[in-house]
Amino acid sequence: MRTADDWFVYNCWYAAAWTSEIEEGKPLARTYLEKPVVIYRGDDGRYVALDNRCCHRSAPLAMGRIEGNCLRCMYHGMKYDPSGQCVEIPGQARISPNHRVHSYPLVDRGGMLWIWMGQPEKADPDHIPHFEPLEDPYWCGLPKRCYLHYDANWMLIVDNLADFSHLAFVHTNTLGGSEDYAKESAQAVDKLANGFEFERWHRASGQPPYLQKITPWSEDTVVDRRNFVRMYTPGIFLMDTQFGPTGWDSMPEPPELLEFRNCQYMTPETRGTTHFFWEYLRNFRKGEDDVGETLREVMFEGFFEDKVIIEAQQKLLEQHGDFQPRGLASDTALAQFRRVWFEQIAAERETFPEPVDIIKNPVL
Amino acid sequence: MRTADDWFVYNCWYAAAWTSEIEEGKPLARTYLEKPVVIYRGDDGRYVALDNRCCHRSAPLAMGRIEGNCLRCMYHGMKYDPSGQCVEIPGQARISPNHRVHSYPLVDRGGMLWIWMGQPEKADPDHIPHFEPLEDPYWCGLPKRCYLHYDANWMLIVDNLADFSHLAFVHTNTLGGSEDYAKESAQAVDKLANGFEFERWHRASGQPPYLQKITPWSEDTVVDRRNFVRMYTPGIFLMDTQFGPTGWDSMPEPPELLEFRNCQYMTPETRGTTHFFWEYLRNFRKGEDDVGETLREVMFEGFFEDKVIIEAQQKLLEQHGDFQPRGLASDTALAQFRRVWFEQIAAERETFPEPVDIIKNPVL
Amino acid sequence: MRTADDWFVYNCWYAAAWTSEIEEGKPLARTYLEKPVVIYRGDDGRYVALDNRCCHRSAPLAMGRIEGNCLRCMYHGMKYDPSGQCVEIPGQARISPNHRVHSYPLVDRGGMLWIWMGQPEKADPDHIPHFEPLEDPYWCGLPKRCYLHYDANWMLIVDNLADFSHLAFVHTNTLGGSEDYAKESAQAVDKLANGFEFERWHRASGQPPYLQKITPWSEDTVVDRRNFVRMYTPGIFLMDTQFGPTGWDSMPEPPELLEFRNCQYMTPETRGTTHFFWEYLRNFRKGEDDVGETLREVMFEGFFEDKVIIEAQQKLLEQHGDFQPRGLASDTALAQFRRVWFEQIAAERETFPEPVDIIKNPVL
Repeated sequence: MRTADDWFVYNCWYAAAWTSEIEEGKPLARTYLEKPVVIYRGDDGRYVALDNRCCHRSAPLAMGRIEGNCLRCMYHGMKYDPSGQCVEIPGQARISPNHRVHSYPLVDRGGMLWIWMGQPEKADPDHIPHFEPLEDPYWCGLPKRCYLHYDANWMLIVDNLADFSHLAFVHTNTLGGSEDYAKESAQAVDKLANGFEFERWHRASGQPPYLQKITPWSEDTVVDRRNFVRMYTPGIFLMDTQFGPTGWDSMPEPPELLEFRNCQYMTPETRGTTHFFWEYLRNFRKGEDDVGETLREVMFEGFFEDKVIIEAQQKLLEQHGDFQPRGLASDTALAQFRRVWFEQIAAERETFPEPVDIIKNPVL
Repeated sequence: MRTADDWFVYNCWYAAAWTSEIEEGKPLARTYLEKPVVIYRGDDGRYVALDNRCCHRSAPLAMGRIEGNCLRCMYHGMKYDPSGQCVEIPGQARISPNHRVHSYPLVDRGGMLWIWMGQPEKADPDHIPHFEPLEDPYWCGLPKRCYLHYDANWMLIVDNLADFSHLAFVHTNTLGGSEDYAKESAQAVDKLANGFEFERWHRASGQPPYLQKITPWSEDTVVDRRNFVRMYTPGIFLMDTQFGPTGWDSMPEPPELLEFRNCQYMTPETRGTTHFFWEYLRNFRKGEDDVGETLREVMFEGFFEDKVIIEAQQKLLEQHGDFQPRGLASDTALAQFRRVWFEQIAAERETFPEPVDIIKNPVL
Repeated sequence: MRTADDWFVYNCWYAAAWTSEIEEGKPLARTYLEKPVVIYRGDDGRYVALDNRCCHRSAPLAMGRIEGNCLRCMYHGMKYDPSGQCVEIPGQARISPNHRVHSYPLVDRGGMLWIWMGQPEKADPDHIPHFEPLEDPYWCGLPKRCYLHYDANWMLIVDNLADFSHLAFVHTNTLGGSEDYAKESAQAVDKLANGFEFERWHRASGQPPYLQKITPWSEDTVVDRRNFVRMYTPGIFLMDTQFGPTGWDSMPEPPELLEFRNCQYMTPETRGTTHFFWEYLRNFRKGEDDVGETLREVMFEGFFEDKVIIEAQQKLLEQHGDFQPRGLASDTALAQFRRVWFEQIAAERETFPEPVDIIKNPVL
């Protein structure tokens, strides 16, 4: 069996939570890369991520109490500051520098909290894969930023997003629209040092079902659809979507377009489960709440269609270890992602040559 | 721990499903011998059993769509014919002979679909252990053919059926009737090359509770009950049951008898779970639907009595690996079944000398 | 992974069940030290503990029928006497001395049944850690003796009881009362050959919430609280609690005190789950049923506060094997308990030098 070290790159930024998920005064317990973390917001407004285990006996800090910028364990009362150092032990005068928990670098970018699970000294916020539309008032988001929990390895979700031909079969009545979508040969995939990108056109088709629900155009408008997809490690999916009257990209006068900007972040919770975050922004009917609500509902419907089949796939793969995949022409993108990912793991293992031994817990 | 290969014989026919379980247009996912299978019925009326994993990335074909005699995976649209060969890949012209899934021989005999999990070239339908009464209009079956899922190894169910003394204690109020049933020494068991058979008489007793509910005779009739039992590998139980006025077998003139014909099929789903199929046919009150319904209910009641104790037994055996059984005189039949079974496994392993390595899945 | 032998001492008395838990005519299935046991009461009034697995094929004897002082397996009817010897096999004349199950020494002391899981010949009832107040009419108990099941290793509950500073944080609104409770340095712990004891005073404080609910005194009475705690292996916690007007221990005339006597017994079910028994006796308002009911409720509330945090701790420790605890000054008691416990295991392993091999079950 692979260990966690065979699965994960540690020295990179992972999407951890939308800031809107962090309730005031309430720490959030969440696991990343099989490590338990607690996230809270101190009185100074900063977000903090600590090991979710009191250094004393592994009581969950997420059951603790926020006091100023600190978090107090509610078992025996140890209080930790944002650096993870214990600053108070009730009934005990001396506190050692070892009375501490790990503090993970955590940075807010446009409402997404990014966490760094590796060596803290290497964490550079400039490398956060920020998605500008999240902060650009030109774009109108959903009424609430979205989260789904997957019982599947995050790479199966990457696979899903790496091959749009599934829209034809999985999302016929939501995000796709017609099985013709799959019949068009996949456009070329550009391999990147940390992922891939591709452009996909679907021409001279009706507006897909999800767009029909909110389109300002007449329902029989024939459109060309352009998707421009970027996927970066560890699990950053960004997509520009444009709908225009068929032939719009060769029109002398640029026509009005219906556009979307979409980010989807996949962060491994464990090797078999994933945190999935997403936002879907638009450039039309921006002030209308019911349009946002309709869009949110149909997107959830579509993403549940993925979830059902991906979780079934995970279950079969877990239960039956003998599966040998057969490649398709459309696998270029997913194969590129895996190649980059395993290279990054191998490179990181050179930096950490000593595997961490799992010591059977001395508390039990 | 034993591997699947230590548990199962592959080159034999297993009961897979009643044809009445296969709904029109709806593939059925079912696991046999720890392998995932999908069963569907094509437009030509033939039943097909394929590996329930698209050869591309292990998406479940049971979530697919039946098209003519083919099955289309509803992830990326690959279409498979009944032989398991992929015949269409949307957006891709070239299809390789490796784009295929395993197709399991599957044969309908009297409403039972028999599956062959081993080497397809050895599958000979003439060796299917068909039970003739299933197709003989002389016999009247239950309103619906029956299925139960067991959280227990199928050999514990074989054990149960190999020793009828349990009727006295487990089924006092349903299939048995009196604890005297157990006191009669077990009749001799005939050992067969692929199982065993025995005859068991219970003389000068009242009609058992299940018969009381449907008997055309007066309720205080004293009867002799004859059971003639055959058990064959892999898990085929056939029983003729006859009730007549006490002493009927030595009467000069054969009296009217109340007779049943019963088949019970146990097919391993995994080493710890079992598919259990059964039918119970009678030669009296044949046109009466309510009699059939009453019989079905009381049989289910009786079989649930078995299920409760057998699943408890399984749980104890799983949780506590130190159990050492003590033999009873009545163990002859079950010991014979195990002996034959392990001989068959050993013989089959000589044919397949190379154990299949379980390769950690390259998809994940 | 540790085996059961690394966790448990076998040659000692464990709390098994309150006699009030044993219903007339109904055997009780319960697991101790990962071994399945059935407890029942025979017609002669004696309590019996047998292996909960019929020696034939591991059917659960707890699904059996009590007949006189014997227990009959309701699968094939084998009947066992209180020594575990099979005394009847329906349909079989000869019974071997091997047709038997293990009978565990089981002794009633004041309503608690104590079981001996080790070598029966070493079981000496004089060594049962009996708690006298359970039988002393001076003390008034709760309306019903109490049981909780924990999804946690029993030593985590021992830890909890070994450090009373947690009352300040876990039980602020039930058993504690103020966070000042934790600020007082822990009193010295006396190390015992088989555990530890300590005295803890909390002076000049209000009556804690649980006492407020039933106190005969005015609610603003300022009290000194004395707890005298003893903890013995394998998991015996005994506590005397005294409340008196502040300064009561140095008054020339002994004042009236509100007193409690409390026992808590932790018995490992498995290495990850625990049986937790307790009684809470008082010396005031003794005849009043509603006082007993109120006390029972608030104690359950307090014990659930422990259960929530301890089970969360267990879950984190199980899921993340890398935890390294940091000691606190208040760990003296729990460290002493672990030291004694592991010494006792090591000493016992010298007596049983041969580890029991777990043989894969020949029934399956």
